[in-house]
Amino acid sequence: MTQPMHEVARIGHAELLTPKPEESLRFFVDVLGMEEEAREGRSVFLRGWGDYLRYSLKLTESPQAGLGHLALRAWSPEALERRVAAIEAEGRGIGWIDGDIGHGPAYRFTDPDDHVFELYYEAERYEAPEHMKPFWRNQPQRYVGRGAAIKRLDHVNLLAEDVRANRVFAQELLGYRLYERIELDEGVEAGAWMSLSIAAHELIYVADAYKANGRLHHLAFWVDTREECLRAADLFVENDIYIEAAPSKHAIAQGFFVYAYEPGGNRIEVTNGGYFVFDPDFEPIAWTKDERAHGQFWGVHTIESFHTYGTPDVAPTA
Amino acid sequence: MTQPMHEVARIGHAELLTPKPEESLRFFVDVLGMEEEAREGRSVFLRGWGDYLRYSLKLTESPQAGLGHLALRAWSPEALERRVAAIEAEGRGIGWIDGDIGHGPAYRFTDPDDHVFELYYEAERYEAPEHMKPFWRNQPQRYVGRGAAIKRLDHVNLLAEDVRANRVFAQELLGYRLYERIELDEGVEAGAWMSLSIAAHELIYVADAYKANGRLHHLAFWVDTREECLRAADLFVENDIYIEAAPSKHAIAQGFFVYAYEPGGNRIEVTNGGYFVFDPDFEPIAWTKDERAHGQFWGVHTIESFHTYGTPDVAPTA
Amino acid sequence: MTQPMHEVARIGHAELLTPKPEESLRFFVDVLGMEEEAREGRSVFLRGWGDYLRYSLKLTESPQAGLGHLALRAWSPEALERRVAAIEAEGRGIGWIDGDIGHGPAYRFTDPDDHVFELYYEAERYEAPEHMKPFWRNQPQRYVGRGAAIKRLDHVNLLAEDVRANRVFAQELLGYRLYERIELDEGVEAGAWMSLSIAAHELIYVADAYKANGRLHHLAFWVDTREECLRAADLFVENDIYIEAAPSKHAIAQGFFVYAYEPGGNRIEVTNGGYFVFDPDFEPIAWTKDERAHGQFWGVHTIESFHTYGTPDVAPTA
Amino acid sequence: MTQPMHEVARIGHAELLTPKPEESLRFFVDVLGMEEEAREGRSVFLRGWGDYLRYSLKLTESPQAGLGHLALRAWSPEALERRVAAIEAEGRGIGWIDGDIGHGPAYRFTDPDDHVFELYYEAERYEAPEHMKPFWRNQPQRYVGRGAAIKRLDHVNLLAEDVRANRVFAQELLGYRLYERIELDEGVEAGAWMSLSIAAHELIYVADAYKANGRLHHLAFWVDTREECLRAADLFVENDIYIEAAPSKHAIAQGFFVYAYEPGGNRIEVTNGGYFVFDPDFEPIAWTKDERAHGQFWGVHTIESFHTYGTPDVAPTA
Repeated sequence: MTQPMHEVARIGHAELLTPKPEESLRFFVDVLGMEEEAREGRSVFLRGWGDYLRYSLKLTESPQAGLGHLALRAWSPEALERRVAAIEAEGRGIGWIDGDIGHGPAYRFTDPDDHVFELYYEAERYEAPEHMKPFWRNQPQRYVGRGAAIKRLDHVNLLAEDVRANRVFAQELLGYRLYERIELDEGVEAGAWMSLSIAAHELIYVADAYKANGRLHHLAFWVDTREECLRAADLFVENDIYIEAAPSKHAIAQGFFVYAYEPGGNRIEVTNGGYFVFDPDFEPIAWTKDERAHGQFWGVHTIESFHTYGTPDVAPTA
Repeated sequence: MTQPMHEVARIGHAELLTPKPEESLRFFVDVLGMEEEAREGRSVFLRGWGDYLRYSLKLTESPQAGLGHLALRAWSPEALERRVAAIEAEGRGIGWIDGDIGHGPAYRFTDPDDHVFELYYEAERYEAPEHMKPFWRNQPQRYVGRGAAIKRLDHVNLLAEDVRANRVFAQELLGYRLYERIELDEGVEAGAWMSLSIAAHELIYVADAYKANGRLHHLAFWVDTREECLRAADLFVENDIYIEAAPSKHAIAQGFFVYAYEPGGNRIEVTNGGYFVFDPDFEPIAWTKDERAHGQFWGVHTIESFHTYGTPDVAPTA
Repeated sequence: MTQPMHEVARIGHAELLTPKPEESLRFFVDVLGMEEEAREGRSVFLRGWGDYLRYSLKLTESPQAGLGHLALRAWSPEALERRVAAIEAEGRGIGWIDGDIGHGPAYRFTDPDDHVFELYYEAERYEAPEHMKPFWRNQPQRYVGRGAAIKRLDHVNLLAEDVRANRVFAQELLGYRLYERIELDEGVEAGAWMSLSIAAHELIYVADAYKANGRLHHLAFWVDTREECLRAADLFVENDIYIEAAPSKHAIAQGFFVYAYEPGGNRIEVTNGGYFVFDPDFEPIAWTKDERAHGQFWGVHTIESFHTYGTPDVAPTA
Repeated sequence: MTQPMHEVARIGHAELLTPKPEESLRFFVDVLGMEEEAREGRSVFLRGWGDYLRYSLKLTESPQAGLGHLALRAWSPEALERRVAAIEAEGRGIGWIDGDIGHGPAYRFTDPDDHVFELYYEAERYEAPEHMKPFWRNQPQRYVGRGAAIKRLDHVNLLAEDVRANRVFAQELLGYRLYERIELDEGVEAGAWMSLSIAAHELIYVADAYKANGRLHHLAFWVDTREECLRAADLFVENDIYIEAAPSKHAIAQGFFVYAYEPGGNRIEVTNGGYFVFDPDFEPIAWTKDERAHGQFWGVHTIESFHTYGTPDVAPTA
């Protein structure tokens, strides 16, 4: 496999769709503690206190929940050109858009499961207004500590009908490195944890239980301590936010988690921890069906919905 | 020594005086995260999310900072009568007041250092209004997580010209038990850590460097984790609150701390940890001058002001 | 109800029975991090680093798992006499024993469910041998940090056929105060959380699913932080210790927990947190069946065995 | 400036020199909790539980303390060749060695301050012996939890007579990216925090107060939580390890720290936290002398020795 290493730098932001824009906004601002950075049309652009770019979440009103698009930042203008050429050659290109609030021209394309991606290079750094200036300059914004006070978007987990096809696309076209994967005994690839950096996961594909396409499993937001995940769970309880999976530690990637549904129906994770992969030849961990039967790190078995629910919701009505 | 055990239940609240009432109020509400429960005259009554009585802090406008009074709750009406009789006999009684918001008739008196105390029995339990009702009923109030989100008042540290006299008064008249004390090599008693319960300290006397009377060293507010002390320090930095002693662990009583000055000038601690004393015959730990020279638990040496500053401030002007 | 307040000080220690004495001892020493303080006959006496009395656990070889006895320390010699007289009058006395390692004469009796208790006054304070002397003298023992490094025994949870009868006995004969209880809709009392101190629970009775008698639900050991509960869970995983309930927060009493089975079969908890009750007239929280259906604090539903398993195990074999 | 990005992957290990090999070894094994992986000659090779390569510390007996060498792993065999050519061209090459335990041929060279570096590509992955096999396969080794239980080597801080020269060398020859730096008002470069990855710092140069060469400021070891830094400090206290700087948070890079001297005299940090830099065009933070006067994040002023002491110790004797 050829991997175009270091061509893509990061997930710049994710666009989340919600049929309940006001309630979703209240959740991200009051409960998760994000700041509103800009508004345009039916979208609000939100940032965590640790985002040094302008925002990491674009929240957009839509008839149904789900992922609008996932925006990746290229490492350089040249890398952007190279990636666009390769994606076009693969036949997955859609075309250029002029840009959006906070970033320049972006090339739209889809992964094999039809999730929409954008790739751009030019990006604006956040400049805090006076009342949001931090005491210490190596922090982009004042830490106000509202709600769960998430620091930034951390990773994105997408459902896919064919995990393997999407995993290979992310590796060969975008340069993602594979760190962990689920290989069920019958040879079916059920999950892939990938990263562009030393972080244990930045982009994840897991099998869609309904074999639908383009669905979102969850967006994960980072906090600096496990204690803040516990605190987020307390705030979810008090704010009538449904907790799908109470705080615990994952077996895969060893991240600490709490999962909830934001009012629009999308699954949200608050996360901390995991391990780093510094080496170029790290051998991906492959998990079998038998091993997965152990549950999460401390033996917790996640409820059925964690393995089936995604947005948009396509569950057959009973 | 005769100790009237289990006659006094707790510190119900402390009255804090501030020459900057608006700024102090903003500190306690926005930075420490307390809720305003009532107002009357020049006073605002404030509560932590874990206070099941109506409030634990009475903040009162005054020409200078310091302690207004310390209010103790008797274990029973009979215990109240017995304590009043004993205090009167000691010649330190002032007399009865009708009560205050949240509690019934109270007997005012002074300790030998002239700090004002009140002792009462009747107290009102907090009833959360609809928007502050918690999800779980064993919590008096919804956890909103604003600011440092302190849970309740924990302990009070008073400066005294004569530590021994005040320590003996607290033991013999009020039933406080002595858990730790500083006995300088020259036989001078420099500090006494006392409690009515298993908690390592609820009332502390330390020597006043200026041999003044009636001064306050600090009020300490409880959080459930050390991580919340660190988070409080972050919020102090961002809100321009002077941190006198950064988060660390005390040698005496082993509590975790961060010390700051509220805008009115009073020293405030956010605290967690320490140990419990379950037994009736616990032998108080006595610290010598040499041992104190080791500094705090991990070797931190607190700055000079920690040993001299109190409110009201009586430092000679240079 | 008449409550003999402040007559009993604390749970001094618990005697745990194990059919696998060597493996259980390895668990308590290597995994929980306790120290062996003494041995006698088929028993090993173990202590946490924060125990200032000699030990808090007596581990005794026995054909089957369960509670040997629960040892309470009276507040004074006079309180001991009064309690013995009252228990005898109730017809639940067994008689005096000469004492045991670390404590003086003890009066044996049973609660209505036939758990064996001992009540004594004379107790020996721990004196650390040279290699276990702590740096700071207000700590009974050097903190070596081995395994989960539990600090001390915290509380004991007993199964009972008739919760109400045992709850009333603990209140009226021993002076326990009731802080929380489960009152199922059909008027059946299913659980009682009681304490002799401000701590949210020291002695708990919950309904025995098999209507057996004298069984143990669990012993709980204290750590100073929730992070140490998470760390204990990691150590359980690595040491092949069955985790029955992964770390989470209880709804009742709001304590943080992790539950495991020690090799002898007894359920063990590592715990932190909860709230304090300082007042004499605290109104016990009563939980209904409907409320209990919400699960634990963050929605976790404990597995069936948590509500049925106890030691000795009396489950019918399939 | 030309930066050879992504040519060097990481710091593979550091060689630490100690005049007290037995005591230093006991410190790293018993207090920091590392495992002995191999021995050869006067060296012991040590690993943290999270190291998936064989080791991250080589501890070598030597007449005086200090850094033996710093070993970097190249991203590929080709990158290794390119870096060697560039370093030779710069005139800082020493030559090839056959390799060492755990890695293949390495090219030795010096930075402008004469610290010895090695650069290699071939490296052996750790294979846990049976008794050290972890429960979860994505962990290289069983977590035994001994001592401070550090996870891995995190970063290295070197003293340099000329910070600028070494910073430029690291950027231009090795591809390090500069994230923060101290630029004193008089235009003197006093510190540079650099990284090969998103981690806030992996290699640091700070000005040598004695204008000596080749000295070490400290090696930093990672733990997953700030609570583990506090726990490490407790263990340092109990094991008679000198704590130079008690746990607190840095202003620069915002890492949580505790600093101690290992018995051989080298400064050791246990660390957690900081922020990530995902973007290619991150503007390095420049600190002025005035800003540095604020002390650390919460106002702690580190003691003088922190700014002067290094190994080998070259302080003039009084």
